[in-house]
Amino acid sequence: MSGLSLYSFAVDTPATATQQWLDHFDTTGTTATLQHLGSTPVIVAHGPGTETPAPDNLVAPVAVVAAGGDFRLGRRELRPEGTVVRVGGATVGDGSLNVFAGPCAVENRQQLLDCADVAEHYGAVGLRGGAFKPRTSPYSFQGLKWAGLELLAEARAHTGLPILTEVLDPRHVERVAATADGLQIGARNMQNFELLSEAGKSGRPVVLKRGFGCTVDETLAAAEYILAQGNDQVILCERGIRTFEHATRFTLDISAVALMKQRSHLPVMVDPSHSVGIPALVEPVSLAAAAAGADALLIDVHVAPEQALCDGKQALLPDDFGVLMGKLELLSMGLSRKLAGVVGAHAVLAER
Amino acid sequence: MSGLSLYSFAVDTPATATQQWLDHFDTTGTTATLQHLGSTPVIVAHGPGTETPAPDNLVAPVAVVAAGGDFRLGRRELRPEGTVVRVGGATVGDGSLNVFAGPCAVENRQQLLDCADVAEHYGAVGLRGGAFKPRTSPYSFQGLKWAGLELLAEARAHTGLPILTEVLDPRHVERVAATADGLQIGARNMQNFELLSEAGKSGRPVVLKRGFGCTVDETLAAAEYILAQGNDQVILCERGIRTFEHATRFTLDISAVALMKQRSHLPVMVDPSHSVGIPALVEPVSLAAAAAGADALLIDVHVAPEQALCDGKQALLPDDFGVLMGKLELLSMGLSRKLAGVVGAHAVLAER
Amino acid sequence: MSGLSLYSFAVDTPATATQQWLDHFDTTGTTATLQHLGSTPVIVAHGPGTETPAPDNLVAPVAVVAAGGDFRLGRRELRPEGTVVRVGGATVGDGSLNVFAGPCAVENRQQLLDCADVAEHYGAVGLRGGAFKPRTSPYSFQGLKWAGLELLAEARAHTGLPILTEVLDPRHVERVAATADGLQIGARNMQNFELLSEAGKSGRPVVLKRGFGCTVDETLAAAEYILAQGNDQVILCERGIRTFEHATRFTLDISAVALMKQRSHLPVMVDPSHSVGIPALVEPVSLAAAAAGADALLIDVHVAPEQALCDGKQALLPDDFGVLMGKLELLSMGLSRKLAGVVGAHAVLAER
Amino acid sequence: MSGLSLYSFAVDTPATATQQWLDHFDTTGTTATLQHLGSTPVIVAHGPGTETPAPDNLVAPVAVVAAGGDFRLGRRELRPEGTVVRVGGATVGDGSLNVFAGPCAVENRQQLLDCADVAEHYGAVGLRGGAFKPRTSPYSFQGLKWAGLELLAEARAHTGLPILTEVLDPRHVERVAATADGLQIGARNMQNFELLSEAGKSGRPVVLKRGFGCTVDETLAAAEYILAQGNDQVILCERGIRTFEHATRFTLDISAVALMKQRSHLPVMVDPSHSVGIPALVEPVSLAAAAAGADALLIDVHVAPEQALCDGKQALLPDDFGVLMGKLELLSMGLSRKLAGVVGAHAVLAER
Repeated sequence: MSGLSLYSFAVDTPATATQQWLDHFDTTGTTATLQHLGSTPVIVAHGPGTETPAPDNLVAPVAVVAAGGDFRLGRRELRPEGTVVRVGGATVGDGSLNVFAGPCAVENRQQLLDCADVAEHYGAVGLRGGAFKPRTSPYSFQGLKWAGLELLAEARAHTGLPILTEVLDPRHVERVAATADGLQIGARNMQNFELLSEAGKSGRPVVLKRGFGCTVDETLAAAEYILAQGNDQVILCERGIRTFEHATRFTLDISAVALMKQRSHLPVMVDPSHSVGIPALVEPVSLAAAAAGADALLIDVHVAPEQALCDGKQALLPDDFGVLMGKLELLSMGLSRKLAGVVGAHAVLAER
Repeated sequence: MSGLSLYSFAVDTPATATQQWLDHFDTTGTTATLQHLGSTPVIVAHGPGTETPAPDNLVAPVAVVAAGGDFRLGRRELRPEGTVVRVGGATVGDGSLNVFAGPCAVENRQQLLDCADVAEHYGAVGLRGGAFKPRTSPYSFQGLKWAGLELLAEARAHTGLPILTEVLDPRHVERVAATADGLQIGARNMQNFELLSEAGKSGRPVVLKRGFGCTVDETLAAAEYILAQGNDQVILCERGIRTFEHATRFTLDISAVALMKQRSHLPVMVDPSHSVGIPALVEPVSLAAAAAGADALLIDVHVAPEQALCDGKQALLPDDFGVLMGKLELLSMGLSRKLAGVVGAHAVLAER
Repeated sequence: MSGLSLYSFAVDTPATATQQWLDHFDTTGTTATLQHLGSTPVIVAHGPGTETPAPDNLVAPVAVVAAGGDFRLGRRELRPEGTVVRVGGATVGDGSLNVFAGPCAVENRQQLLDCADVAEHYGAVGLRGGAFKPRTSPYSFQGLKWAGLELLAEARAHTGLPILTEVLDPRHVERVAATADGLQIGARNMQNFELLSEAGKSGRPVVLKRGFGCTVDETLAAAEYILAQGNDQVILCERGIRTFEHATRFTLDISAVALMKQRSHLPVMVDPSHSVGIPALVEPVSLAAAAAGADALLIDVHVAPEQALCDGKQALLPDDFGVLMGKLELLSMGLSRKLAGVVGAHAVLAER
Repeated sequence: MSGLSLYSFAVDTPATATQQWLDHFDTTGTTATLQHLGSTPVIVAHGPGTETPAPDNLVAPVAVVAAGGDFRLGRRELRPEGTVVRVGGATVGDGSLNVFAGPCAVENRQQLLDCADVAEHYGAVGLRGGAFKPRTSPYSFQGLKWAGLELLAEARAHTGLPILTEVLDPRHVERVAATADGLQIGARNMQNFELLSEAGKSGRPVVLKRGFGCTVDETLAAAEYILAQGNDQVILCERGIRTFEHATRFTLDISAVALMKQRSHLPVMVDPSHSVGIPALVEPVSLAAAAAGADALLIDVHVAPEQALCDGKQALLPDDFGVLMGKLELLSMGLSRKLAGVVGAHAVLAER
C-alpha cells in the first residue's frame, strides 16, 4: 500500500486522544489503525483525511511522516534521536560502542565460564552463547539446549554480564525469554515470521540477524513483525551476505550498516566473526564496522577454538580479543565515540 | 564427520538382523546407528569395523556406500532407481512429468474453485494453493489460514485433485497434515529445522523448496532433517536463487535440477512461476526444466491475475496454461517421457 | 536519453529518402541520426517532430518503435522475424538448432584434427577452438596464437566446418577476421568496448559472450557497440553468471535465454560446457537450453580431456557428444524444431 | 602448477649471481625462471632442486617462499614490509592514508579546474578524472579523450597535484603514460590481459580496479600480469562487487581490503563513490575503508554534481568532501596513522 501517513504522538498521549483521531479519520473516509512503537502511539492512515487540515480540538502529533508501505514503525523519521535498546545494563543505541562476546555455542560449564571471564575481563558489555544451535545438518551438534540456557544463567551470575542467546522455535520463546536478557534471531530464521511475532510478544530485546540471502529492505520489513507487537527493543544485525566471493565465509555488507542507521532509528550490530569466518580478519573488519557507525559488535571468543563443537575456527583467542578491545577504544576516540564498559583497554596494546 | 559407511538392507529385513550388525560394529570399536530411509534400514557406521570383512552369519546388505557426513539418506547410491513420492494419486519420481497448478494464495471460494477447474481441465495432477502465506511484510495479506485449508479440501472434493499447501509453523503441522495431501516448506523456511522435523514426523509427502540464498548442498542437508524422521516422501524443489540479475525475480538454477537428480534419489520439482516472476517467461522456463530432468512443475495459474492478493502478476491465464500443457506433452515425447494425467493436451495447440 | 523513437525503413530505401527524413526532423527541432541495422536504415529521433504526423511526401517507415535509450538496434520490434546470422554455411536464427563443437583450446595439429573429425561426424555445424586464450594467470598456457589460427584453417579445409575462434586484442581483429568464419568475444571482454567496435568493423559474424558479472541489459547494450558499426551479424551467448552457488563453475541463467530471445531479434547461443564445468551436467543443461529456445549450442569436445591444456575437465568425450546429438535431435522434434546439419544422429542412441 | 618455490634476492644482486642459481637448478632437473619484482630478482623454481640444500658458493636468497602457482610476485612474504607506490609526490603504502579526489569524468576546462581546486584545498594528494570513459552504452558520453588528457595536465600545473586517469585500449597506453602520473585500469578491464601487460610495460604506477564479478584471487592473479613486466608499482583497488543487494550500486567488500593487505605486499585503495553510488553513504564507507586498513581512497568530488555527464549523482559536494577529510584526519589518529597531505583538515569540522 502506498501513500500512507504515519502520525506519531507523545508518549503520554491518552487513549482518548488517539481515539479522537481515529474517529476523525473514520468520518473522512480514511483508513486508520493505531499501532505502538514501544510506548509511542502511531496512527497509520491512508485516504483523503490525510490531505486536509485536522480539526483544532485534536491533539497535535509529534510528527507526520510519509511512508511507502512495508516499512513503518522502524523509520528513522519517527524517532530521529534513535532508539536505545537495553540488554541488561548495556545501552545499545546511545552513541557508544558495545561489544558482546563469547563462544558460538555453549559446550560445557568450564568452557562457558572461562569464555565469560575473558569477555568480562576485556570489557565486553554482554555475553553471547548459543544453547540452541541451528545447524545445516541434523547430524551436527545441535547445542545443549535447556541445559545450555542454565549454564548461561550461571555465567551471568558469575560475571555480572547480561546474556544474549538464540531462539529457534516459537514454542521455546517464552521459556528462553524468562532467562535470557536478550533474544537472538538467527540469519536462517529472519523470515520465520511466526518466530518473529513470538519474540516481539516476549517483551525482551531482540537481536535480528539479517538473512544471508535477504536485502536491507527485507530486513527492515522483518523488524516490523517484532515492532508491530509493541516491542521497540530491536537491534538489527549485519552478519554478511552470500556472494560469489568465497575467500571469506560471507561478504560483510558494510554499506548496509550505514544505510540501516540512516533509514531506521533502530541500533545496528555487526557480527564480524560469522561474516568472515577467519580470525585474522576479525580485527580489521570490527574496526571497519565501528567506523561505519555500528552501535555494537558481536565477537566469537573461545579459550580453545580448536576444540569448539561449532564454528570454532573463526573465534578469537583471548589475547587477540584483548588487543581488539584496545584498538576499538583508541578508534572510538578518533570517531568521537566511547567504547562502553571499558576503561583503559588500550593499555593492553602498550603491554605488547 | 568424514569416512562414514552406509549399509542399506532389504525392506523386509528383521530388526534382529540389523541388531546383529550393530552388535558386530560395537565389538569392533565402530560407532554405528540405525536409521531408516522410509522402510529401508540403513546403518551409518564409522570406524575400523567398516574396513574389515563382516562375519558370514550377518545378513548381506543391499549396498554399502561411502558418505561424507551431512548428506546420507538422500544419496542416490542408496536407491539408484529413485524414490517415487505419492501425492494423492500422483506419482512423482516414476519418470513421468507431473504438473501441480493453482493460485499462489487461496483468496476466496469462487476464485479457488475456478482455478481448480482450470488445473483439472488441462491435466494437472494436483492443486497448489497457499492458505498460510509467508509475507515479507506484516502488513501484507497473510492468507485465509484455516479457512483457506477448508476451501482447499472443498476444491479437492470438487475436482478430485490432491492438494499441496504450505505450512509455516511447527505448531500447525499436525493439523495441516490432517487435511492436505502434501505439505510444502517454503524457501524462507528451508532452514527452519524445527519445522522440517515436524513435517518429517507428519508422514505426509513434503515439497522442500530450496532457500533462495542456499546452496544445493544445504538443500540436500535440509532434506536429511525430514528423511531422518523416517519419512522418505520428499520432493526437492528448485525455485530460483538470489543473484545480481534482477531482470527476473530470481535466477532459476537449471543446473541444480540435473545435479540434484544425479546426487539424490529424491524427485525434483521446479517452480518456474516464482523463479521468473514474469508470465511470458513461464513457458520457456517450464520446457527447460522438463528437459533438464525435472519430475514435476509447480505453476501459478489464476483466473484473474490482476485481482490476485499475492504474486498475481506472475500467474498464467487459463488459456496460456492450456498451451503450456500442450507443449509439455509434445516435449515429453521428444524426451521419451510421458506427461502424467493428460491425454491429448497438445490438441489445444492445434485449435489455435 | 529517454523518449527515443526508432524509424526503420525498407532495405532498399535510397539515401535521399532517409535524408529527407533527417531534414524534416531538423526543421522541427528534433535531434535525429541515421544508423544501420545491417542494411536496414534506422533513424533515431528525439524531440517534438516524433509527436506530430510526418509530411506525406516522406517515404513511409516499416516500423516506428519507442526505445528507452541504451538498447536500440537490437530491439526485436525492429525485426520481429529475427536475424539470421551466417557462420560459413550455418544459419543461426532461422528456427533450427545449431551445435558448434570442438576443443576449448587448440593444442596441436593432431588434437585439433581429431576433435574436428568428431564434431563433423556427429553433425556439428561449426568448429570451435581457441588460438588466443584469456587466462586468469599470466603463468598459464596462453594458446598457440597465430599458429593456432593456422591449424584452425587446416581443420576447416579437412572437415568443411566453418571455424569460430576468440579474439582478445583490438590490434588482432583484422588479422583474425581474415581467417576465421566467426569471431568470439569472451565473457571477460564483454565490456572491452574498443574490442567490440573493432569486431563490429570487421564485418564478420560475432559471438558475444555475456560477462559473468553482467546483466542481460548490459549484454544487450554491449551488442549495440557491434551493431552500431553496421554489423548485424551478432549472436548473443549465455555462458553462466557468478553466484554464491559453487557446485557448478557458473550458474547458467536459463531465463536469460528466453528473455534475450523476447527482447532482441538477435539469435541466442548457450555454452553449457563453461557454465557448468562438469561433463555429466552438459547433456541435461544442453537439452534445457534448446527447450528454452536457444538457437545454438557451444560444446567443448575433446578426444583426450585429461590431457587438455585448458578447461579439459569439462569437455565431453566423443561418444558422449554423439549421445547428446542424438538426444538433441529427438528433443528438437518435440519442440517442432530441426537440429541443423544432422540426419539420423538419434540412431546413435539406438546403437547403445 | 603447485609446489613452486620463490627465491628472492637483494636488490643489488648481480645477474651473474642469479645465473649461478639458474645453472644450479638446471643441473638438478629443476625448472627455474628469473623474474623481477621491481628491482628485486626472484627465481621461480619447481622440482627436486628445491628440496635439497644449495651449494655454499651461491649467494644466499633474502627469502624462500612456497607458492601455489598463480599468485607469485604479489605475495606479501616476498616483501613483508610492503610496497610503496609513488604517484607523483604521493607515497601510497607507507602507512599513511592517501586521498585521491576529483570528478568521475573530465567534462570541460572550468569544471576540471574547479574540482581540482577543491581536491587540493582539502588536502587530497592526487587528482582523479576520466578522459576515456568506458560506458555500458555506445550512446553515452565517452569522455573528452585526448583533449581531456590535456586538461588534466593543465589541472596538474594549476594545483601541483599528480593526475590519475583511466586507460582503455592497449594502443593508447604509451601516449597516456607520457602524460599521466598514474594509470587506472577499470573494473570492466581487470581481465583485459593485453591492456594489463601494456600498462605493466609503461613503467607508470597502475591502479588496478577489481572487476565487479571477480574474486580476490582473480584480482591478485590479474596484478601478476603487470608485475610480470617488471613493474612493481601496482595499487589494488576494491570498488564493490555485484551481489543481489541493489540498495547500493555495488556491495563494497570490506573484508577483501583486509584480505588483500594480508596476502599481498601491494597497497590497497578503496573507491567508496562507485561502490555505493549514494553520496550520503560515501562518508561512513570511507571511514570504514580506512579502519580496515586501506592505504588510499578514491573519492568522486564535483562542484555541480547535477550537471555531471557521468555518474554525477554519487559525487560529493565540496563542503561534504571537506567534512569527510576532517573526519578522516581524526580517525587516522585513532588508528595511529596519518592522513597524508593534510594539516588541520579536522578544523573544518569545528567551523560547522
